Amino acid sequence: MAEKPKIVTGLGNAELHRILVRGYDLNKELVGKITFTDMTSLMLRGRMPTANEARMLDALLVILVEHGMVSHVVAARLIYHCAPEAIQAAVAAALCGAGSVHLGSSEWSAKMLLEAMPRDMQNADYDKIAAGIIDDYTARKQRMPGIGHRTHAEGDPRAETLFNIAKETGVYGKYCDLRQKLSQLSTERRKRLIPVNVTGAIAAIALDMGFSWQITKAFALIGRTLGAIGHIAEEIENPMATQIDAAIKQAISYEPKRV
Amino acid sequence: MAEKPKIVTGLGNAELHRILVRGYDLNKELVGKITFTDMTSLMLRGRMPTANEARMLDALLVILVEHGMVSHVVAARLIYHCAPEAIQAAVAAALCGAGSVHLGSSEWSAKMLLEAMPRDMQNADYDKIAAGIIDDYTARKQRMPGIGHRTHAEGDPRAETLFNIAKETGVYGKYCDLRQKLSQLSTERRKRLIPVNVTGAIAAIALDMGFSWQITKAFALIGRTLGAIGHIAEEIENPMATQIDAAIKQAISYEPKRV
Amino acid sequence: MAEKPKIVTGLGNAELHRILVRGYDLNKELVGKITFTDMTSLMLRGRMPTANEARMLDALLVILVEHGMVSHVVAARLIYHCAPEAIQAAVAAALCGAGSVHLGSSEWSAKMLLEAMPRDMQNADYDKIAAGIIDDYTARKQRMPGIGHRTHAEGDPRAETLFNIAKETGVYGKYCDLRQKLSQLSTERRKRLIPVNVTGAIAAIALDMGFSWQITKAFALIGRTLGAIGHIAEEIENPMATQIDAAIKQAISYEPKRV
Amino acid sequence: MAEKPKIVTGLGNAELHRILVRGYDLNKELVGKITFTDMTSLMLRGRMPTANEARMLDALLVILVEHGMVSHVVAARLIYHCAPEAIQAAVAAALCGAGSVHLGSSEWSAKMLLEAMPRDMQNADYDKIAAGIIDDYTARKQRMPGIGHRTHAEGDPRAETLFNIAKETGVYGKYCDLRQKLSQLSTERRKRLIPVNVTGAIAAIALDMGFSWQITKAFALIGRTLGAIGHIAEEIENPMATQIDAAIKQAISYEPKRV
Repeated sequence: MAEKPKIVTGLGNAELHRILVRGYDLNKELVGKITFTDMTSLMLRGRMPTANEARMLDALLVILVEHGMVSHVVAARLIYHCAPEAIQAAVAAALCGAGSVHLGSSEWSAKMLLEAMPRDMQNADYDKIAAGIIDDYTARKQRMPGIGHRTHAEGDPRAETLFNIAKETGVYGKYCDLRQKLSQLSTERRKRLIPVNVTGAIAAIALDMGFSWQITKAFALIGRTLGAIGHIAEEIENPMATQIDAAIKQAISYEPKRV
Repeated sequence: MAEKPKIVTGLGNAELHRILVRGYDLNKELVGKITFTDMTSLMLRGRMPTANEARMLDALLVILVEHGMVSHVVAARLIYHCAPEAIQAAVAAALCGAGSVHLGSSEWSAKMLLEAMPRDMQNADYDKIAAGIIDDYTARKQRMPGIGHRTHAEGDPRAETLFNIAKETGVYGKYCDLRQKLSQLSTERRKRLIPVNVTGAIAAIALDMGFSWQITKAFALIGRTLGAIGHIAEEIENPMATQIDAAIKQAISYEPKRV
Repeated sequence: MAEKPKIVTGLGNAELHRILVRGYDLNKELVGKITFTDMTSLMLRGRMPTANEARMLDALLVILVEHGMVSHVVAARLIYHCAPEAIQAAVAAALCGAGSVHLGSSEWSAKMLLEAMPRDMQNADYDKIAAGIIDDYTARKQRMPGIGHRTHAEGDPRAETLFNIAKETGVYGKYCDLRQKLSQLSTERRKRLIPVNVTGAIAAIALDMGFSWQITKAFALIGRTLGAIGHIAEEIENPMATQIDAAIKQAISYEPKRV
Repeated sequence: MAEKPKIVTGLGNAELHRILVRGYDLNKELVGKITFTDMTSLMLRGRMPTANEARMLDALLVILVEHGMVSHVVAARLIYHCAPEAIQAAVAAALCGAGSVHLGSSEWSAKMLLEAMPRDMQNADYDKIAAGIIDDYTARKQRMPGIGHRTHAEGDPRAETLFNIAKETGVYGKYCDLRQKLSQLSTERRKRLIPVNVTGAIAAIALDMGFSWQITKAFALIGRTLGAIGHIAEEIENPMATQIDAAIKQAISYEPKRV
């Protein structure tokens, strides 16, 4: 009988005395010598970052860690309170909410930019591409991803910070450009500020760094994992889940409904 | 009516134009200026790390990112394949497995060390404490957490790496000491090598750094979040979940069982 | 100060001596008197089912419980093995995979049917509607949800079973009709069998019962929760996660890849 | 080369034209003929239930479905709001909280009863066993699982309902007996009511039905899966997550904390 083709991974392998990561010996070549940010580059881009790239990656990893008592960390606190023996499950509950509306929207933002960008960039007219995207969303009456923020109604300061670092590190490229053009054109047309939000900026920058559109969400997932653990750590020292629960219950009334 | 006491968090807050993290302005003071590892220290320890502490934290964050095709990343790949529109859920599935048997055992390891350590360290006899722990587990016929590893049967090289860095960075303290004494004494008694494993080392080092025992699991959770995303990124480029599924099904036979 | 509007839920409330569910007293009127299937109807449709509706709901709840060693239950077994103290997290991991490709596709299927169905049903031409849907998916080169199944390549027997029960119970309506017309027309055009699969049938039947398109997924989620627990229960009595892990690892080889 | 031993499951298998569940043909023998509750028995106990057993199982499946705006369903609502395209992840988030403190405590309750029950039941003195358990928890200064409830401070009406049905259906046995003796003795000693709560009752009844202690949690998981979907269904029709979020934020103040 012919041998079945092996499934081949290029990421890593654990041997009796060695662990290999993309060919590096984890213990001899990586741990103690590289930062977690370097490891992020190695895992997700297949190589060590330059100093500029590392600075950009650090910014992307730090930007979404903490944003106050948002839904994801409230969920983490409530679930931790119910199941303190399984902290991992409380963190998982928080991550489950990195979707299209909050935290995880870079994925949809990146897909939109990617699909609109022409293959031949030689004579690309960005204004025209941006106008096409806006017309398309207007026609479908859909909300464009990557713009606006309830808390930061006058502009998400995180987007500006990230774009500035992207320029300083030389990462800023065609996706960042298109993203900002989209915002400018929307603002002109609607005659009110339509600012890029943080996941819109992450999406553009990560695409310019060569990440696939789905993996632009990595920064939200890694950052908020740290954020959720931070909130759980505070919950351990200073429990407030019971008070949060009480505040919610006090705000709710019950009016039985049947059909 | 008296005002209800407010619930008070010390972590962060999102304002219209600012985001604050432990009093720092996220955009002006943190992003672009600090590493993700610094942010980990700020969130979980309440302050920026020294250079030595940062090196130790990087080692702890990097060590569990990748270990080949282990259960957690297989789960991530399978779940991603079923629900590619929700990458966050595939990562959450992986994290759900950071429990007492694999990946998450630092929590139990740290609790054991913490409970055995006397309040008064002046005249503490570590050999006696270690002997007491071993006697206790032997009496209860329970497996001690933090020792042994199926893949690394002759010693987990990651534990040694971490203890070396702990010594180099000055982090190595009483918990590391007790942890290693426990391994030595177990080895002597059982007349075969009983080596510390990676989560055993993480537990001791994190306790010596002042982390609470539950939060020693943070490194597994953050590291493996990156690891799971790495495997999903490979799955996107080079799908193998269907082949993994086929390999599992081929290894299984069905013999209907009723009572 | 004006009072803030209360948030109003119509589902339930827990008082000191009573629990109310849509106005029923849980202890006095429901538990011991109704089935879980009745409760499903009360929670999701707002009323008790007729005998025919209960039979249909039971069929929908039972149909997806078990399908052999599929990805969702493999994930549950692997995660349980890593974290046996948190069974809930292993079940959650399984549910995380109820997405667009496997298990959860009724949601997308139902949305497609709903959007294609005209408001005015008086003179609706189902053949024309079905042709429109097929043309649309063909033009977009997208795979239509609700048809085909890898394991059941010659037709998913579960779809036929469900449609038969829908006819017997009088639930079969316009969405079932459109769903089956879509399959027939696809089969004619492609000149090979394009059968409705189980989630395609669930979507149509649930829409005909008045469920919103998103909630058609309820049957997959409830059913597979039971299924995952069944597999974990077997794993407890007869552990096989380690062997599954070994089978996977044996099928995989490592070829380090860098960029 | 010797053939490797196959991994053997007794649960189910999917063939080209058939799906088998514990030897039954899913389509020909189960769907349309049995209830979801029968299927629960088949999956978890390996056989169809008697009429009395089915009534008991229905009560266990129904009792935890709905309990007002508790933490698990709040988490489901918040996560759904953030990621509406992944309802399964919102349900998973809710399940993640079925732990030792809320919802999932039957597991710990059952373990306690099981370990205290002597192998030889001939001359078992239940009062003595109950006293031994209480002494043990008192000595360890631990909170006994299965008693007390914050909302139902004067007794959990659900426990009484379940014990009554257990008596009516003949399921009531030695574990129920011990469970109630424990409550009586605690009440006598502490001179205030120490009532059994709902998960305490579920644990005892499920043990008396032959479930393994870990699987007593099945009823919480299946029931609350339905409950979480019910809350998400309401959220779809009448969104309140944003108001819940606002109520939480209004109750919280920020006082930056560093070390």
